[in-house]
Amino acid sequence: MSTIKIGVTIGDFNGIGLEVILKTFSDKRMLKLCTPIIYGSSKVVSYHKNLLGLQDRIQFNKISDATQIKEGHINVLDCWVDDVKIEIGAVTQEGGKYAFLSLERCTEDIANKLIDAIVTGPINKKAMQMADFPFQGHTEYLESKFSVNNNSLMLLVNDDLRVGLVTNHIPIADVSSVLTEDLIVNKIQAMHSSLRKDFSIEKPIIAVLGLNPHASDNGAIGNEDLELVIPAIETAKQNGFMAVGPYPADGFFGSDNFTKFDGILAMYHDQGLTPFKALSFGQGVNFTAGLKVIRTSPDHGTGHDIVGQDIADPSSFRKALFTAIDTFRNRKDFLENYTPSKEKVTLEEFGEKSDVDEIIEEDFQENN
Amino acid sequence: MSTIKIGVTIGDFNGIGLEVILKTFSDKRMLKLCTPIIYGSSKVVSYHKNLLGLQDRIQFNKISDATQIKEGHINVLDCWVDDVKIEIGAVTQEGGKYAFLSLERCTEDIANKLIDAIVTGPINKKAMQMADFPFQGHTEYLESKFSVNNNSLMLLVNDDLRVGLVTNHIPIADVSSVLTEDLIVNKIQAMHSSLRKDFSIEKPIIAVLGLNPHASDNGAIGNEDLELVIPAIETAKQNGFMAVGPYPADGFFGSDNFTKFDGILAMYHDQGLTPFKALSFGQGVNFTAGLKVIRTSPDHGTGHDIVGQDIADPSSFRKALFTAIDTFRNRKDFLENYTPSKEKVTLEEFGEKSDVDEIIEEDFQENN
Repeated sequence: MSTIKIGVTIGDFNGIGLEVILKTFSDKRMLKLCTPIIYGSSKVVSYHKNLLGLQDRIQFNKISDATQIKEGHINVLDCWVDDVKIEIGAVTQEGGKYAFLSLERCTEDIANKLIDAIVTGPINKKAMQMADFPFQGHTEYLESKFSVNNNSLMLLVNDDLRVGLVTNHIPIADVSSVLTEDLIVNKIQAMHSSLRKDFSIEKPIIAVLGLNPHASDNGAIGNEDLELVIPAIETAKQNGFMAVGPYPADGFFGSDNFTKFDGILAMYHDQGLTPFKALSFGQGVNFTAGLKVIRTSPDHGTGHDIVGQDIADPSSFRKALFTAIDTFRNRKDFLENYTPSKEKVTLEEFGEKSDVDEIIEEDFQENN
Repeated sequence: MSTIKIGVTIGDFNGIGLEVILKTFSDKRMLKLCTPIIYGSSKVVSYHKNLLGLQDRIQFNKISDATQIKEGHINVLDCWVDDVKIEIGAVTQEGGKYAFLSLERCTEDIANKLIDAIVTGPINKKAMQMADFPFQGHTEYLESKFSVNNNSLMLLVNDDLRVGLVTNHIPIADVSSVLTEDLIVNKIQAMHSSLRKDFSIEKPIIAVLGLNPHASDNGAIGNEDLELVIPAIETAKQNGFMAVGPYPADGFFGSDNFTKFDGILAMYHDQGLTPFKALSFGQGVNFTAGLKVIRTSPDHGTGHDIVGQDIADPSSFRKALFTAIDTFRNRKDFLENYTPSKEKVTLEEFGEKSDVDEIIEEDFQENN
């Protein structure tokens, strides 16, 4: 088969997942780029197809296992035979249960190399909890199955803007105590590795944001940036990773300096995701770096309030699909052409990028 | 005098403060909008004028006290007679000392109603500490002099985007313990009051961001949003303030819903300022709400690395000046036309803004 096989989980069938999936594949050019396999059931997928009035524009290849996948078709893999109750816009135990089944079957198939990459549809956390899904979200579930050295990284991607998180879904009160020098170094390493392998950037330059306002302002606003972040950056440099910072988050995103970096590492969820989403205008993609497999997802939720109204925007899902294809190809190319001697880069090699030195020197001090 | 008298502090004379000030007033139209009084010394101001090659384009009215202010001129008020050592781009004790003197004299004059409003040039925190300035920054200094009921608010303004902070310059580790229901209610009240008085918005609608990722996700990620933020919003509503939320910060700035609010209240520094600056492109203005006087400043720092190179952008300073003029006029107008019976608004009055109800209902859940 010449095109990449993308496993697509349907997410919560009471949400907008299938709407953005079907809108995306109603454009037949998509089938030249990849062979989609929608993990769900043909009944559920048809329900949403009819709801959207796409009866005449989409034909499926109904299959019961991945050996039956056909190129040039939208494959729908039946993960269950049950009659299910779809309640558009509602948060139900069934919505969670079947999202979980879709995800489980899809991850089994990629573990067995029957498909090449995964794009996940949005799930609803409450519905997942009602269905006894024992994880915070997709990222944590996939980490448990596919993480390399227990060091995965949530990475938000929009073209050349790539923002990773050191800590994910934890309360603000816990961020400082969870942060360690090792954790930051590990995330720099995971980002470096993913930027090389998955985004084909030979010598990635990573900006590290400070934890506290004004990156602690020399200890005037906390000590973590001096005691944890700066030592972590130093250690990362000694290990051959080009990490610079810590930069105060507000000043960093307040000029176009951020465009000069290949990756940006934020210390916590809102610090990274808020400017990312403000700058991405609904085009962001969630990429889980550091997994043995490629997984992307749109960066929006289940949109329970707008389901069935034909107003959900498929841009982010389409971009998630493109990113899955790109990163799968990049990683394959990297692994095939991998030369161990290239792996360890030296700091001197970065000398040529003089604009970065300027950034490092720059005064990000604020006037508050 | 028919134009508004704006006191301008020079900030750190080793930084870009005087560059953006002089560039702004080299446009003579400015003198039709306001009468500037630069608090510093004619020697220091002339030094920067010569450095910028503006000798022929700027003439000063040198004065020794505010009774000598002349309309239609750039007044420079000599706050000291000492010969000072300017070290362009350096952080020095003198840079801090004379910035402090400029600020002190300017605040004395506004306290005595000799001038109408203040625009402050950027200071360097280290230089200020070297000069024994016992405050975190301008905001805290001015609070100590002019706060109403000890309830001021740091507000970042760019046209219709107005972001306020519940907590300012404190470490991330302390944010959760400093937050209380009362503090949040007070800041909602300070924002409401300033939006009415200073921005002429009769019935301001305020969006409140959640503290934790996903606004705590119903208690799955911390409890503060349920135990502090939601009760604070309820109390604020009962007191007649239209506050809604809590919204997860990332999803909130990820769509254009944020444009539907008159003010946005963030729980901490980077949560509010990072998306604000990402969206403001160097045009942001720092406004201190809840003071007895009007004070604005540009939202950039002293730019010690770019001083004397004629590359500092005066946009933010100019906008700070415009905002000072606008808010001074608005507040004057409000106080002159103040009708006590209008002060207390009722929730029912907000019924007409139906788009807000939609926003409130909207599902901001994320797919991480």
